[in-house]
Amino acid sequence: MINNSEIAEKLLKAWRFFYDKNYVDGFGHISARTADPNRMLISRHSLGKNVTREDFVVVDLDGNQIGTSAALPGELPIHSEIYRSRPDVGSISHFHNTFATSFTMTSQELRPTYFPAAIFRDGIPIHPDSRLVNSSERGRALAATLKNHRAALLKAHGVVVTGRDVEEMVAASFILEDNAHRTWLAASMGDVQYISDEALLEIEAEVLKSRGPLKRIWAMCEEHSHNIEP
Amino acid sequence: MINNSEIAEKLLKAWRFFYDKNYVDGFGHISARTADPNRMLISRHSLGKNVTREDFVVVDLDGNQIGTSAALPGELPIHSEIYRSRPDVGSISHFHNTFATSFTMTSQELRPTYFPAAIFRDGIPIHPDSRLVNSSERGRALAATLKNHRAALLKAHGVVVTGRDVEEMVAASFILEDNAHRTWLAASMGDVQYISDEALLEIEAEVLKSRGPLKRIWAMCEEHSHNIEP
Amino acid sequence: MINNSEIAEKLLKAWRFFYDKNYVDGFGHISARTADPNRMLISRHSLGKNVTREDFVVVDLDGNQIGTSAALPGELPIHSEIYRSRPDVGSISHFHNTFATSFTMTSQELRPTYFPAAIFRDGIPIHPDSRLVNSSERGRALAATLKNHRAALLKAHGVVVTGRDVEEMVAASFILEDNAHRTWLAASMGDVQYISDEALLEIEAEVLKSRGPLKRIWAMCEEHSHNIEP
Amino acid sequence: MINNSEIAEKLLKAWRFFYDKNYVDGFGHISARTADPNRMLISRHSLGKNVTREDFVVVDLDGNQIGTSAALPGELPIHSEIYRSRPDVGSISHFHNTFATSFTMTSQELRPTYFPAAIFRDGIPIHPDSRLVNSSERGRALAATLKNHRAALLKAHGVVVTGRDVEEMVAASFILEDNAHRTWLAASMGDVQYISDEALLEIEAEVLKSRGPLKRIWAMCEEHSHNIEP
Repeated sequence: MINNSEIAEKLLKAWRFFYDKNYVDGFGHISARTADPNRMLISRHSLGKNVTREDFVVVDLDGNQIGTSAALPGELPIHSEIYRSRPDVGSISHFHNTFATSFTMTSQELRPTYFPAAIFRDGIPIHPDSRLVNSSERGRALAATLKNHRAALLKAHGVVVTGRDVEEMVAASFILEDNAHRTWLAASMGDVQYISDEALLEIEAEVLKSRGPLKRIWAMCEEHSHNIEP
Repeated sequence: MINNSEIAEKLLKAWRFFYDKNYVDGFGHISARTADPNRMLISRHSLGKNVTREDFVVVDLDGNQIGTSAALPGELPIHSEIYRSRPDVGSISHFHNTFATSFTMTSQELRPTYFPAAIFRDGIPIHPDSRLVNSSERGRALAATLKNHRAALLKAHGVVVTGRDVEEMVAASFILEDNAHRTWLAASMGDVQYISDEALLEIEAEVLKSRGPLKRIWAMCEEHSHNIEP
Repeated sequence: MINNSEIAEKLLKAWRFFYDKNYVDGFGHISARTADPNRMLISRHSLGKNVTREDFVVVDLDGNQIGTSAALPGELPIHSEIYRSRPDVGSISHFHNTFATSFTMTSQELRPTYFPAAIFRDGIPIHPDSRLVNSSERGRALAATLKNHRAALLKAHGVVVTGRDVEEMVAASFILEDNAHRTWLAASMGDVQYISDEALLEIEAEVLKSRGPLKRIWAMCEEHSHNIEP
Repeated sequence: MINNSEIAEKLLKAWRFFYDKNYVDGFGHISARTADPNRMLISRHSLGKNVTREDFVVVDLDGNQIGTSAALPGELPIHSEIYRSRPDVGSISHFHNTFATSFTMTSQELRPTYFPAAIFRDGIPIHPDSRLVNSSERGRALAATLKNHRAALLKAHGVVVTGRDVEEMVAASFILEDNAHRTWLAASMGDVQYISDEALLEIEAEVLKSRGPLKRIWAMCEEHSHNIEP
């Protein structure tokens, strides 16, 4: 069973990767559930480019901090309420990515145009509330929008992406934004041709069986961290 | 009360931040009012990437330079006339940012699509004169367009953003361009869905109460400067 | 006759060039046929930013690895089936480039708008199958779509580009994405004006006679590698 | 009177500036007329990122190289024929810039939307021939398209920009692409609002009287070179 130090190491790599890809840019936080399913490791408040394993702190699902006294993200309820309602979720990201979020500001739909995004084939709901998710009530409302989907968009605000573990959260977060980037390119030229439901079904099955594309994104994340380490 | 050296330090951080984000690119100047409300600290003429606190010089609202003889921006009247007409303003930026300025070159409106831009909910007027604001008369005309708004666009030219202090000017300048970037992404895909007036009212109140998003942008600015210091 | 070490050196330069231009980004592989026409040198599985000549390994067209035991790309059949059906092809790239691939997600056509792309004047077919090309059968289907063209797009997936040698593959891969970038810029402003068939015929002849534009792209690739070498 | 070594120093700065702004990217050359009006200094063939003053060589308007034996750009006639027909021109650039060139691939017009581009208010003609300008005949045809304008677009190919000296060529090349970038942003959102003829007339007069915006772009170019020098 993975220990907290190992989880922090993975979150550290994920944070650096997303930071250098401009997913963070002042906002954003990531977390992972610990071996104790009522606790998570989460990035501290206002985390920036420079980061160590100690910047990921242990909090229980009621918001009690364990063993540290770091300032916590005001939107902690995004994480606690999704972990509470979704036992299958082991890791969560919240970013204000420009491409994915822009699909909440126009009537153009965000659906899979790029094959790895088949993992989002059951839909990406849009949460209608644009306010900061800074209370349990707002967190529960977001979890209700998310339901059993992998990800949700927050209108005029950002995205929430889940994974069974940090590796899957990283791959899914990357694929969501990449698919949004590519769909935007197509939409800016006119009509968008989405992948058919039949093709999505088969491609999703293949991707989740081999997990090849997911592993390659995680490998890219690990190499990125390796390259910037002293 | 903040002294000039402390103000210069903040302006230095702001300049570096905006320079590396390509807000400056040959043009642009920033200023802050001093403890003496009839004076400001302003970036000298043609300031580039390399900058020290001495590049911010003291000028009174009549354009008299105090204690230095640096070349001043030709558009100094942007700053002096806005400080004169707006006692609530403590800091001003003028840039030719590509995204915000592009909204003066098309009929698409620049209004909040991204929630932190709720601070601009009372509108961003467009100044119809595209000429350099290099006289008191032109400065007064711009101040008349700006009225009590936080920011104005200058047609075919650039933007002017105000704040009560340097920190707020930095956050507002960043949010204005970020919101313009995101609105452009949406507009290039078809229709734009702006945030409703009701939601803007509530979100603005929350943002200005906690000042959370504003503080995080300033934290990002400070970390940027910290990372490039020798 | 060029030996494997020299081919690996060229592939190394090509990889670094495309990596730093963000053609790779987690996915992508390149290869070149050896002096023995039944063998190729191909980038190993999940190759990233850091690369040496040893990352290019010898495989025969039946997928047998010669002298190494590296993990191979799952989409090896892209390369083996095209080499088998196209004796004129000496080098192949497969990327998920954002601009070229986006033309499989909209009804806007990818045809030459920029003069060096005259080398693609006989058309760039779109392969209708978006799945990973991870079997001989799928590889043969792709080769059947490609026919005698220089390049093909894979719907919702990526591109395949061929060349008589590594230099030509590099130039053609660069021109394909550059032409897609420029066509996207035009398309996002409204209608696209493609180059006329008469002009394409003459320009292609000139480009292939002097090979000037192709040589300059290869020179740019070589200089890039020279600049990053220790 | 400026000597060749001083001209080479200015061209060196211009080249580095444009190279790092991605104007060059494999293609492009720049030149300046010498004190002897029948000669020019021009960047040698296939010049890349690494450049010294010796990479700018003396050639007369008949294409004879003076004192060196460097490979010359195949499109030397762009420069020689424009210098021959336009005694007022002291410096020329030829690039394949993505934004400006894209306006030859769509019916959207490239006209001033950004105030410094008032210097192009008399129009930017489009040369209809997309072929390399590698003969005197083609060079004369291009000069005939250019007439007395500051710049011309080459259909499906690139741009040619002139200036009375290197400083003005640099500023005009920068403003042309910047205005194209901004016009593209506006066009991708719908309609474009160009600056009125009356405003253009007044703004051009102001810009050419003070030369302020031109000097600031040259200052940015000089600082760029200063920052990368050893």
